[in-house]
Amino acid sequence: MGSVLSDVAKVVQEKTQVRLHKRNIERVISAVMTTGDFWEIVDRSDLPVPAASEIVKELISREILFVDDRDNILLTQRGYDVAKELGIYEIPDYSCQACEGRGTPFYADKELYRTFVELAKDRPKAIQDFDQGSVTPETTVSRVLFIDSRGDLRGKDVIVMGAEDDLTGLAIALTRKANRVLIIDIDQRLIDFDNAIIKELGIDNAEAMVWDLRNPYSEDLLQKFDIFITDPPETFAAFRAFIGRGIATLRDEGCAGYFGLTLRDSSIFRWKEFQETLLNEYGVVITDIVQDFNDYMNWEYHPETRAAQIAPVKRNPSGIWYRSAWYRIETLPGFKVWNEPISDDVFYLDEEGSTT
Amino acid sequence: MGSVLSDVAKVVQEKTQVRLHKRNIERVISAVMTTGDFWEIVDRSDLPVPAASEIVKELISREILFVDDRDNILLTQRGYDVAKELGIYEIPDYSCQACEGRGTPFYADKELYRTFVELAKDRPKAIQDFDQGSVTPETTVSRVLFIDSRGDLRGKDVIVMGAEDDLTGLAIALTRKANRVLIIDIDQRLIDFDNAIIKELGIDNAEAMVWDLRNPYSEDLLQKFDIFITDPPETFAAFRAFIGRGIATLRDEGCAGYFGLTLRDSSIFRWKEFQETLLNEYGVVITDIVQDFNDYMNWEYHPETRAAQIAPVKRNPSGIWYRSAWYRIETLPGFKVWNEPISDDVFYLDEEGSTT
Repeated sequence: MGSVLSDVAKVVQEKTQVRLHKRNIERVISAVMTTGDFWEIVDRSDLPVPAASEIVKELISREILFVDDRDNILLTQRGYDVAKELGIYEIPDYSCQACEGRGTPFYADKELYRTFVELAKDRPKAIQDFDQGSVTPETTVSRVLFIDSRGDLRGKDVIVMGAEDDLTGLAIALTRKANRVLIIDIDQRLIDFDNAIIKELGIDNAEAMVWDLRNPYSEDLLQKFDIFITDPPETFAAFRAFIGRGIATLRDEGCAGYFGLTLRDSSIFRWKEFQETLLNEYGVVITDIVQDFNDYMNWEYHPETRAAQIAPVKRNPSGIWYRSAWYRIETLPGFKVWNEPISDDVFYLDEEGSTT
Repeated sequence: MGSVLSDVAKVVQEKTQVRLHKRNIERVISAVMTTGDFWEIVDRSDLPVPAASEIVKELISREILFVDDRDNILLTQRGYDVAKELGIYEIPDYSCQACEGRGTPFYADKELYRTFVELAKDRPKAIQDFDQGSVTPETTVSRVLFIDSRGDLRGKDVIVMGAEDDLTGLAIALTRKANRVLIIDIDQRLIDFDNAIIKELGIDNAEAMVWDLRNPYSEDLLQKFDIFITDPPETFAAFRAFIGRGIATLRDEGCAGYFGLTLRDSSIFRWKEFQETLLNEYGVVITDIVQDFNDYMNWEYHPETRAAQIAPVKRNPSGIWYRSAWYRIETLPGFKVWNEPISDDVFYLDEEGSTT
């Protein structure tokens, strides 16, 4: 009976090319004990969508799960028997209601939060071309407070790279606490939006400019900042373009970088490879990994994504289901200034990704 | 003027053999803006005590800091001028008041918390021989809830290794949710304490036994568990004995390990070496690093520690100042079963450690 899980892992791995182990299957069964919603199952099982989808389909074909007429995914009687025999249980959610589990509550600076929400209401809509999907305003403000409480904001030169759909750069600028804020993004709409607000509010140490991170940085961006902040897609090429290049903007040792990494578009196996790149190649140390720090709002283009197309059910997400962990890294002596060009092959999407 | 920080870093590194960069000095100056208490300065600057102490002394000799007649450490007028010129500011604390910044509030299971507090009141006192110093009851219970919310408790075989001064093993046993709990520690007093409670409460799937982690595990402990939990001293030898051997108890891929690592007895440079060992040698991935998760109560033997002897002031700590980050790791295929003997040279204390 225990071999059911390994067996499903093997079959799904062959089908999807997403690396899996048997505990990934266990987590899906646990998740179904709590929710029938496919997108919540993805969230609770911390798996790439293609893998979660195929696992559900495989478990349906083995009569461990079934789908009811309202697109709810449920355990069959056989499913409950299997779970009991293998010792699989529901997993409780104990995350803090006050700070939404981040450890840093967004309302610790209510004025910043209110100002940000007012300004963000007219933000450009997320579009599929650039893998956009904004985090909640609570996430953006919590990021800023987290960064400030690590001594990485006041008096610092900060670059916010290629993730301005979250308006994190704007929120950093609004604090007026950094020495300098440079916001870069590929999307002209976001750059114009930020610059209009920056000008209107007379924030004279912040600016936004268009940049495609596939291109190497010019000399005036290399090793000129104390802090970088970004939120990459989870392909290797994007990891290099966003994180590698982020590290290259840092001036010297003891500087810090912040970014989100998700398990919804990347397996835990790939996370290990990302971590190896950080330590062995880029020469930085990881100081923080806070799971589920970044909550993403649903994007209008969801029905057009690969994720929606491969899902085992048609029902669209209703609540927040896409989350990422918040990483902080720190440079140490000898860290690498990586600034190669990147071809755009497999930049946004590969076998583990699906939400673009 | 900017060279003051690099200069101090260099001098102190030579004196203490603790690796430093100039931002470590910046952090000490920031900390002094918030508190005059040396132990709180260590806490806020995330530095090994010998380094923090020598930095304070060096900054005093350069007339950037001074000590008043109540053992408060303060900035001189010159110190304020230097801070202003270099753009050094106070760092705010935005950690959540509800969950104490952990993201997982201890009161999410009030019954477990109350039961634990009642039982722990008669716990054996922390002794210096074994580098003991207990975390707060709120920390212990939060650890259990964190582990449970990751799917690492219910139905699992759990080993709690060499850190039972925190009574984490007892707290795990009290939930009665694991399949099996094995608690090992070098201290007979703690083992007897746990076994008495386990027997009295009729918890029949838990047991405690004496073990010295410097010795290799016997076959009946290797690869027999789903989860290990520990809290090592920060020397390399102890890291291997606690974490390396912890990983060796895990049965297969997708299993998890939990442990604390502090920056009060270890530099960020050494953290990088620990992380390299985890990824490159042991073949595991890091899934969580939650800073300041573990709060340690002060230990009675503090005046006898090297930390107290080298501090720049005589005043003992009044509040919590010693914290550690909470790590979670996960095994992936090919992870290493490391089980070599360890000599006891430099097991508890080296150039960066001081609180034993």
